[in-house]
Amino acid sequence: MNASEFRRRGKEMVDYVANYLEGIEGRQVYPDVEPGYLRPLIPAAAPQEPDTFEDIINDIEKIIMPGAASPACTELETVMMDWLGQMLELPEAFLAGKAGEGGGVIQGSASEATLMALLAARTKVIHQLQAESPELTQAAIMEKLVAYSSDQAHSSVERAGLIGGVKLKAIPSDGNFAMRASALQEALKRDKAAGLIPFFVVATLGTTTCCSFDNLLEVGPICNKEDVWLHIDAAYAGSAFICPEFRHLLNGVEFADSFNFNPHKWLLVNFDCSAMWVKKRADLTGAFRLDPTYLKHSHQDSGFITDYRHWQIPLGRRFRSLKMWFVFRMYGVKGLQSYIRKHVQLSHEFESLVRQDPRFEICAEVTLGLVCFRLKGSNKVNEALLQRINSAKKIHLVPCHLRDKFVLRFAICSRTVESAHVQVAWEHIKEMAADVLQAEME
Amino acid sequence: MNASEFRRRGKEMVDYVANYLEGIEGRQVYPDVEPGYLRPLIPAAAPQEPDTFEDIINDIEKIIMPGAASPACTELETVMMDWLGQMLELPEAFLAGKAGEGGGVIQGSASEATLMALLAARTKVIHQLQAESPELTQAAIMEKLVAYSSDQAHSSVERAGLIGGVKLKAIPSDGNFAMRASALQEALKRDKAAGLIPFFVVATLGTTTCCSFDNLLEVGPICNKEDVWLHIDAAYAGSAFICPEFRHLLNGVEFADSFNFNPHKWLLVNFDCSAMWVKKRADLTGAFRLDPTYLKHSHQDSGFITDYRHWQIPLGRRFRSLKMWFVFRMYGVKGLQSYIRKHVQLSHEFESLVRQDPRFEICAEVTLGLVCFRLKGSNKVNEALLQRINSAKKIHLVPCHLRDKFVLRFAICSRTVESAHVQVAWEHIKEMAADVLQAEME
Repeated sequence: MNASEFRRRGKEMVDYVANYLEGIEGRQVYPDVEPGYLRPLIPAAAPQEPDTFEDIINDIEKIIMPGAASPACTELETVMMDWLGQMLELPEAFLAGKAGEGGGVIQGSASEATLMALLAARTKVIHQLQAESPELTQAAIMEKLVAYSSDQAHSSVERAGLIGGVKLKAIPSDGNFAMRASALQEALKRDKAAGLIPFFVVATLGTTTCCSFDNLLEVGPICNKEDVWLHIDAAYAGSAFICPEFRHLLNGVEFADSFNFNPHKWLLVNFDCSAMWVKKRADLTGAFRLDPTYLKHSHQDSGFITDYRHWQIPLGRRFRSLKMWFVFRMYGVKGLQSYIRKHVQLSHEFESLVRQDPRFEICAEVTLGLVCFRLKGSNKVNEALLQRINSAKKIHLVPCHLRDKFVLRFAICSRTVESAHVQVAWEHIKEMAADVLQAEME
Repeated sequence: MNASEFRRRGKEMVDYVANYLEGIEGRQVYPDVEPGYLRPLIPAAAPQEPDTFEDIINDIEKIIMPGAASPACTELETVMMDWLGQMLELPEAFLAGKAGEGGGVIQGSASEATLMALLAARTKVIHQLQAESPELTQAAIMEKLVAYSSDQAHSSVERAGLIGGVKLKAIPSDGNFAMRASALQEALKRDKAAGLIPFFVVATLGTTTCCSFDNLLEVGPICNKEDVWLHIDAAYAGSAFICPEFRHLLNGVEFADSFNFNPHKWLLVNFDCSAMWVKKRADLTGAFRLDPTYLKHSHQDSGFITDYRHWQIPLGRRFRSLKMWFVFRMYGVKGLQSYIRKHVQLSHEFESLVRQDPRFEICAEVTLGLVCFRLKGSNKVNEALLQRINSAKKIHLVPCHLRDKFVLRFAICSRTVESAHVQVAWEHIKEMAADVLQAEME
């Protein structure tokens, strides 16, 4: 949608809201619909080609308003998570609309998704061990629980361990910054021999530092064999898996118990919207089900409905699936795929500019929209370069450490980025680099 | 703002956003401002009388845009939490702008605020005990930790205990559904004698079931004496404390370590916006501080800035303080006070209608906007009444249990509610009651 259509549609929406508020006394306080009303009213999958804005708005009045906030908010979320799961070709076990026991939920952030997965895994292993040995206390078990992630995993994984009160151990990644079978197996073996209880592994697809990928096809079977919960954190990279040419990066998801990525990062859905799927929803809801009278309702034991409050940390929820519905329909799957492809192409364009300049080096394989690069030379000169670039305020780069190397990260992430922006940025970086190298020689 | 002004202003906002997007390349990618730039630019307290919409919009361009999303998002939040804290007459120790060590943060929900408080308290007591006895493991301590709340506390408190992996015990409330000194003291004494470690108490001001108030002036000193973290959950009732005539309900907050209420419940700020203050921000941030390179920034050790990511479960944040800024200025403190007073007056109007009908009884003291009532008689007849009311779909009531009694709850909560609505609702309830009583006699 260009700015001129945005002006027109935005103003129509303002009128829609005002009309709603002016006419609110004419509306019923409680919907007439039955649980499950929504799914038959909308297509089973996201459209390939864009829908018109008119069609979407008409559907709001026809499909959402009769279901008010509840159950429409819940039911649209369940169906949108199925649409998105299908776009990623997730195994059917993760989808709510199939016969399986899985389903999706929108969390606020990948941090919350990792925490919920860890808590569910913790509860599950405690119940299992207490069923075998009723004399074991929760604390005695928790003292021995160990979670694992690669040494490249996001800090939120460590935080989930701290909150959950369990040990988290970092598995050394390989030369491509990926977690591999051998290192994980070694840790599991060592810890089990020491009497500890491995219960949870986080595999990262698209690390924050350099967008590396843990080896799911190696790690997954080990987790299954050891009966350890496998959670996949694909916060950034997940959006790319809607493109067939990137889907292979998700191979091995069939071994996972839970999977998460953030459509708010790279799928044009405004913050916040973090998509999480589980293979067995009972694992999540079983962990914290509490049903006081003021939260009971007549449908809760029907099996037809989803109570998302059991799937997350907060109780209240916003209607975030509306954002997904609008975006998926306004762009169509093909439009979203083009958007991803353009970003990946632009990052390769930047990569090739860097590779043509012998003063620079590429520090990690460029797979999606992130390029890790640096001046050949000391960390000091690269820190000076970053400082100079960010002080000039024409572009902004966020650095990282890869092993002992200080590395600059060029991230393609704007909705409106074009090749011209990449070219201008590179010219600017070269200029700043020349200044830094000059200063160093003086 | 009436619907016609909303139409005009809403459309101006759409144009503002479109202009912003069209002109975005002309803007600097990183702000020129220094940490702390924002506080001197805005008044030290919320206005008593409403500001005009023009004034507010002009301030957006003048005050927010130069600070972009960061640091404006953080700094406005800190100042808005100080404004709101002053409106509640919170002790200065809770305010960030004073010399103290405290401050406020916006959480998504009261559930998250309670959880963060419990986790901070858990970390603090573990550190304390390990400092005294380094041989103690975290698990050995956690096994003995006990948190407490009234038997009327919200289910999210129990959930925080489950997530935190600690015991939570319910303190029997008194005849007014309030937690009192004697019952708490008895529990503390019994548990300490059994070798357990009390570390956390949640006092509720305005319970979900019947809007009862734990006795802070009794409970607070006990917590301080026993060196137990006191968290106050005033999710609903907190908004009322901006009125001098209701502020006494908050007396005793000076004994608390953390305090929380939801402006999204009753202070006209749209969901979500849960306001939490702590007396010592280091207790919160110390619990989970993690600083990977990609999250470091040049100001982080300056002492001038607040990193809210250490204050909460998620990492990412939305610019929720803008909602507070707009609402506080559009209404002024007096406008917000009038809004609260009107709701309380309408609930007393409903209470008096109920009291005039000898078939009904009031089940708990009416203090704010909630009236708990029922037909004198069996739970069965009251369940039938609720069922009939909610099936008719003219109004909607959420019930609760008070001890063994099934109780109906009449909640004043709409922005546009008037006396006429209360009257219509009461006529409708009487009609439904007559039908139910008739059916019972047949």
